[in-house]
Amino acid sequence: MRTHPGNVFVISAPSGTGKSTLANRLVASLDNFIFSISTTTRAARPGEVNGKDYFFVDDTAFDQMVHEDGFIEWVQVYGNRYGTGRKWLQGVLDSGQDVLLDIETTGALNLRRAIPDAVMIFILPPSASELEHRLRGRGKDSEIQIQERMKYARHELELYHAYDFLVVNDDLEMAYQQMEAIVWATRVRRERMVSRAQAILKGF
Amino acid sequence: MRTHPGNVFVISAPSGTGKSTLANRLVASLDNFIFSISTTTRAARPGEVNGKDYFFVDDTAFDQMVHEDGFIEWVQVYGNRYGTGRKWLQGVLDSGQDVLLDIETTGALNLRRAIPDAVMIFILPPSASELEHRLRGRGKDSEIQIQERMKYARHELELYHAYDFLVVNDDLEMAYQQMEAIVWATRVRRERMVSRAQAILKGF
Repeated sequence: MRTHPGNVFVISAPSGTGKSTLANRLVASLDNFIFSISTTTRAARPGEVNGKDYFFVDDTAFDQMVHEDGFIEWVQVYGNRYGTGRKWLQGVLDSGQDVLLDIETTGALNLRRAIPDAVMIFILPPSASELEHRLRGRGKDSEIQIQERMKYARHELELYHAYDFLVVNDDLEMAYQQMEAIVWATRVRRERMVSRAQAILKGF
Repeated sequence: MRTHPGNVFVISAPSGTGKSTLANRLVASLDNFIFSISTTTRAARPGEVNGKDYFFVDDTAFDQMVHEDGFIEWVQVYGNRYGTGRKWLQGVLDSGQDVLLDIETTGALNLRRAIPDAVMIFILPPSASELEHRLRGRGKDSEIQIQERMKYARHELELYHAYDFLVVNDDLEMAYQQMEAIVWATRVRRERMVSRAQAILKGF
């Protein structure tokens, strides 16, 4: 029984904060909770499936969607464009599912304007030194890249006030529980429960 | 380390909805989460401890507190008065503890005016027939009393829109998890995390 339409959750975090781990576990653990599927002009990589990982389109089709106001938000990154399709998102929400959008701070701020009641979660590292330590530990980046990531992390962190919830990923288990709590609590917010409450009241 | 002041939670529910069970378990399970201690003019019952169950005062002392605006909210029930002391509550919140107030809808609406950011939770029965069934099952009330409780429950339920969260106690375990999630989520709301976020940002 669907008692309310789905919720939109947005998650942002500096690189190395554990965002993907937390997001993947949420989607794997919670019912009716799925990742948003972006539309992109980027070519599919080996193993990526159209309609599962992304909706792959060419530039003309993307232009057309932009022209028709078909995106809630879209961004250009390294010459490729990525957007959240309005119709797709609405259809999923109408079916009662919650949608998680993993997007950068810029896209998140645009999304907030388009969907004011989106629940926006920002993941923070416990400290700058711990983030740097984690980035080094991954062994993926050069020294210069690490310094660039740290600088960009600072830029992103400065936007924390645009988010509804701030989760510090100090202890992964604790951070996960906080994330899950945000989803559970959102699902029993009054706005989401009005039709259920009305139905109960009618019986009295 | 205290990173934010405590939160005020208010819980209301019609009689027979399982409110006390849920509230007791929350206070027993969560750290830094305590029941509010009311000040009352009612006489202590056997076993009740002053400063633990209530602050017991005489009418003159209560009048004095009312006169000095010493209560966040107060009500009169069957000739006795009950109030939440302003100084007491502020002291507990300043110490970083969350406080749970178990109060009736009327008191809750007054409290909302006094503490706009109080987190207000309303517990609903799954249906009128189930509530009536539970009230009968307790074997505490006469038929007339049950009918009165049902009528009063309807009156209380009509005030659901004044609350932030609506928890339907259909399955007790599920309802408890929802309650706990509300507390956890509240603790990571941006407003509560600003000083922590600022401290992290400073390190970058």
